[in-house]
Amino acid sequence: MGEGIVREAEEVSRETAKEGDLAKQVEELKRQFEKMKPGAEDKISIIVFSGDLDKVLAAFVIATGAVAMGMEAVMFFTFWGTPVLRDPKKRVNGKDLMGKMFGFMLPKGRNAIKLSNMNMAGMGTAMMKSLMKKKNVASLDEMFEMAAELGVKIYICEMSMSLMGFKKEEFIDYPNLEYVGVATFLEQAKNSRVQLFI
Amino acid sequence: MGEGIVREAEEVSRETAKEGDLAKQVEELKRQFEKMKPGAEDKISIIVFSGDLDKVLAAFVIATGAVAMGMEAVMFFTFWGTPVLRDPKKRVNGKDLMGKMFGFMLPKGRNAIKLSNMNMAGMGTAMMKSLMKKKNVASLDEMFEMAAELGVKIYICEMSMSLMGFKKEEFIDYPNLEYVGVATFLEQAKNSRVQLFI
Amino acid sequence: MGEGIVREAEEVSRETAKEGDLAKQVEELKRQFEKMKPGAEDKISIIVFSGDLDKVLAAFVIATGAVAMGMEAVMFFTFWGTPVLRDPKKRVNGKDLMGKMFGFMLPKGRNAIKLSNMNMAGMGTAMMKSLMKKKNVASLDEMFEMAAELGVKIYICEMSMSLMGFKKEEFIDYPNLEYVGVATFLEQAKNSRVQLFI
Repeated sequence: MGEGIVREAEEVSRETAKEGDLAKQVEELKRQFEKMKPGAEDKISIIVFSGDLDKVLAAFVIATGAVAMGMEAVMFFTFWGTPVLRDPKKRVNGKDLMGKMFGFMLPKGRNAIKLSNMNMAGMGTAMMKSLMKKKNVASLDEMFEMAAELGVKIYICEMSMSLMGFKKEEFIDYPNLEYVGVATFLEQAKNSRVQLFI
Repeated sequence: MGEGIVREAEEVSRETAKEGDLAKQVEELKRQFEKMKPGAEDKISIIVFSGDLDKVLAAFVIATGAVAMGMEAVMFFTFWGTPVLRDPKKRVNGKDLMGKMFGFMLPKGRNAIKLSNMNMAGMGTAMMKSLMKKKNVASLDEMFEMAAELGVKIYICEMSMSLMGFKKEEFIDYPNLEYVGVATFLEQAKNSRVQLFI
Repeated sequence: MGEGIVREAEEVSRETAKEGDLAKQVEELKRQFEKMKPGAEDKISIIVFSGDLDKVLAAFVIATGAVAMGMEAVMFFTFWGTPVLRDPKKRVNGKDLMGKMFGFMLPKGRNAIKLSNMNMAGMGTAMMKSLMKKKNVASLDEMFEMAAELGVKIYICEMSMSLMGFKKEEFIDYPNLEYVGVATFLEQAKNSRVQLFI
């Protein structure tokens, strides 16, 4: 009897040892998992560097498509993408000479941008827009509306704003538009499943 | 004796509690793991938005290189990338005026595309092609052949086809060529380890 | 009493079965985890395909920003990005005719590259550079210095070097500059959290 109990006690202690080992392994797995988990958020992060009509359209088709599939979508407008977010109806004062020059030379918002290719002095761009209408492809105006409704997040790069002399007051009204630096983008990007530089 | 057994019973029930706890933790880990697993497929998804010779070449070098390393590769041709897949020997009828115009203006397949830079009225492009031959870099024709053999998957964007008035009959013969929307691309992209917009 | 012990023995053996099961599950999780782990390294891989000043700047802002956030960063210079790494002070001999022509036509290093847009015969590029100084945005020279200090890894694409007839002797001095093929890039990219084609 006593022997039986000793054997059992040994069994239990062996169990406990194995158990403790297993618990440690599970702990380690959880720790490693925690570390990598952020990388797997069901999110897409898009850098909109280009200000070409075709590329901006592509960015919106992808971003809205992603949200329609249940993903989150974040668009980070930088460099030539920045002026796409200008509101042509808004005027700002107090810019320095360089800011005025850039303001004059860069497109005033999404309806002033051109195709990257076959623009042909505006003819190609006009043709593409008329085609989009005919083929029931959403225009850039409709894309912005859709993106806002779907909750696509839009960030504006502060460095580009500063370089081009833009002020917050001249950008479009968009829900939760934010002015951020590269760190914010990277934080989003590294926690996203898909990242694109457009 | 009775006391010993009571102690053991307590031990066992504590064990069971810890055990149940561990089982639950493992269950939770498995659940979270299942959720993220798709993101880690050994696959590369490339959007070929550009129709420039240099960029299309880069896309193929990367895609075929990936397959050579044991990865899967998916190429999604959209916008200016779409006409790269035209077969110049195939003729189609019944296009509307816009379709005919686009068909005329856009390059007729991969041998009609140019460098994005230093094209110099075709001279740069010709120079690059002759150099590629001399340096034993695969031509675009060879790249397509290799890609087909290696099982690189090629998708054509339906929206671009519709916009540019292309018909399925005018595209190249390629194994399992598919005509898809943005959702199909995103499904692939989010399950890939690498995604590029070229 | 004997009954009690039998019941306990049964309990223990059930425990052991469950335990073994759990151990197997943990083993399987660890195995799967090992397989995917590489995909989650806190690293960013950037293909610098473009040789435009604005895009190269963006690549460096992102790469150095990533390292500042504690990530690793790898830049893979290919095609038009390759001449950006030339050192204008270094001269090489023994190039063939094509190599000499490319050497002459392609920009001699980072201070010879132009904006992709609004270059306006160099005026836009000069304006941007003076603006960057004024707004305290790091110049490309400073970016390279910062990248070197931060440990940003720079790779040069061997195929592009060979195509353009460049020799190792004409590239800049940079810590651990390496000459690699597409496989090396893909190895890095698939083990990175973020990948961009710029």
